[in-house]
Amino acid sequence: MELVIGIDIGGTKTKVGLVNKDGHCLESAFFRTREYPDLDVYLDKIVETINVLKSKFPEQLNILGCGIGAPNASSKHGTIVNASNLIWKGTVPILEKFGQKLPVPMRIMNDASAAALGEMLFGNAKGMKDFIAITLGTGFGAGIVANGKLVEGYDGFAGELGHIDMTIGDGRLTGLGVRGGLEAYVSATGLKRTILFMMSKYMDDSIFRGIAYNDLHGEDITKAAEEGDPIALKAFDFTADILGLALANFTAFSQPEAFVLTGGLVNSGKWIFEPLNKYFNHYLLEVYKGKVKILRSGLAPKTTAICGAAALIWENYQLEH
Amino acid sequence: MELVIGIDIGGTKTKVGLVNKDGHCLESAFFRTREYPDLDVYLDKIVETINVLKSKFPEQLNILGCGIGAPNASSKHGTIVNASNLIWKGTVPILEKFGQKLPVPMRIMNDASAAALGEMLFGNAKGMKDFIAITLGTGFGAGIVANGKLVEGYDGFAGELGHIDMTIGDGRLTGLGVRGGLEAYVSATGLKRTILFMMSKYMDDSIFRGIAYNDLHGEDITKAAEEGDPIALKAFDFTADILGLALANFTAFSQPEAFVLTGGLVNSGKWIFEPLNKYFNHYLLEVYKGKVKILRSGLAPKTTAICGAAALIWENYQLEH
Repeated sequence: MELVIGIDIGGTKTKVGLVNKDGHCLESAFFRTREYPDLDVYLDKIVETINVLKSKFPEQLNILGCGIGAPNASSKHGTIVNASNLIWKGTVPILEKFGQKLPVPMRIMNDASAAALGEMLFGNAKGMKDFIAITLGTGFGAGIVANGKLVEGYDGFAGELGHIDMTIGDGRLTGLGVRGGLEAYVSATGLKRTILFMMSKYMDDSIFRGIAYNDLHGEDITKAAEEGDPIALKAFDFTADILGLALANFTAFSQPEAFVLTGGLVNSGKWIFEPLNKYFNHYLLEVYKGKVKILRSGLAPKTTAICGAAALIWENYQLEH
Repeated sequence: MELVIGIDIGGTKTKVGLVNKDGHCLESAFFRTREYPDLDVYLDKIVETINVLKSKFPEQLNILGCGIGAPNASSKHGTIVNASNLIWKGTVPILEKFGQKLPVPMRIMNDASAAALGEMLFGNAKGMKDFIAITLGTGFGAGIVANGKLVEGYDGFAGELGHIDMTIGDGRLTGLGVRGGLEAYVSATGLKRTILFMMSKYMDDSIFRGIAYNDLHGEDITKAAEEGDPIALKAFDFTADILGLALANFTAFSQPEAFVLTGGLVNSGKWIFEPLNKYFNHYLLEVYKGKVKILRSGLAPKTTAICGAAALIWENYQLEH
């Protein structure tokens, strides 16, 4: 059986899976990224995980290659550079180092660009030539497709939209020190920060007055909204407002047919999507109105990022065969 | 001799010229757009202008086609839609109407996208695959090239960056009613508005206290800066600050190798470029530093827009032959 290894290197979890040509992740596993501060040990852990996954198949496997999605990855250099959500600082020559341990065709890309490829090959952007995939996890990522091709940029670092300056109020800092940066507001982390902000601004009673920041999870905020918690509702509205403005601005850039949203924040469902649609349409220029869809990822929720990473390799096979 | 007609439809002037394969505009003329509120009469005036230009050549001309650059033009529909700086409102089916008067191959595009093609074929972006052309005239336009191709968007309206919300202070309105929109600050018009704003904010003496808004021209502001006028200097600094932030944000989108600036504001030379470089480098993410050039147009100043428009047709010939 022909399979591709998909790896998603996230700030919290590293996910590894084996993906077939239809974009189905047949086996997967994950471990906590932060437990492996030594890059060498970390890469060994990935190889070990792959071997465990492979051993679950009785038949002979033909591994066509390995695709990796990671924050701040340069597709052109095979490196990860100054990723604020990762433990390894500076420029990490990950493809070179990992290639020594795993001798298969390998490709790395910004996680959001990988998500975009995944949606184009296997998900809700099939057949689209102009769309933007947005990942709302620990951080904010964007994978831009124009004229049917990923926009990688001169040096492979296009789509770092989490760090554009939204100049909101006095401006939160992102992990890269950008004041007013989008990802400080619109991401799973941003939503948690907004819960604190709303409790500082308003005196509404809320379940979150009894929960410490470190114990706060996205699912709790969704659950609180369902129960009518005013702080949770205000936080979703505020987040959706900023995201709506950002997507309206991005539309003016490349006029996508759709935004495909993925990542933890998307699991908040209508609490984020309903106000998002309202604000997006409010901010959108007249010339774009009614022409830009906001979609959820079309891939299986738990393995979306793995399938996106695997798409980096499957893309070449779909073109060749 | 093989020539292409290049037409630039601007808010103030309509420029018409005949351009050879090297991007040289051999003959050109202009007239004031606002004097022709009737579209039919306007198009006749263009045809008349073309005929005058053609009559200046003694030899037989082979006109290969006609390229048109215009604000808010859709390349995919051949229309101009709700252009705030033009007299004709709503959707103008310009290619269809003009084609009836001038039976040659015809193509229309957003003026800034045309400028980008012009720079790629004939100007300072030769050989670049990822760059952004910025036009700073009556309005603010952007022509984005990624992977060697123009980003036109799903519907042909990509690059309307003059109307992205920069949420600056209480926010000026653009011609499309966008509060805090970029073009309300960064354009020839924006600079004039900033002169008024600076005189309202500061009590510095200035030559502009004796000049009415309607009598104010970009060249006067450059001249005043050269003479040390504090209001002019503050206005350039303020404009460059916002443009620097915008270009830093755009870099995060498509990571261009260069921005190529064109249009009236560029003629202010060091008064705009020196503070622009300072602010741009201040706002730019570390990962992009030292990798993004800010260039001036490489085309002849008076006929830049005509050559850009002509590039819409020459592009096809350079690919074919």
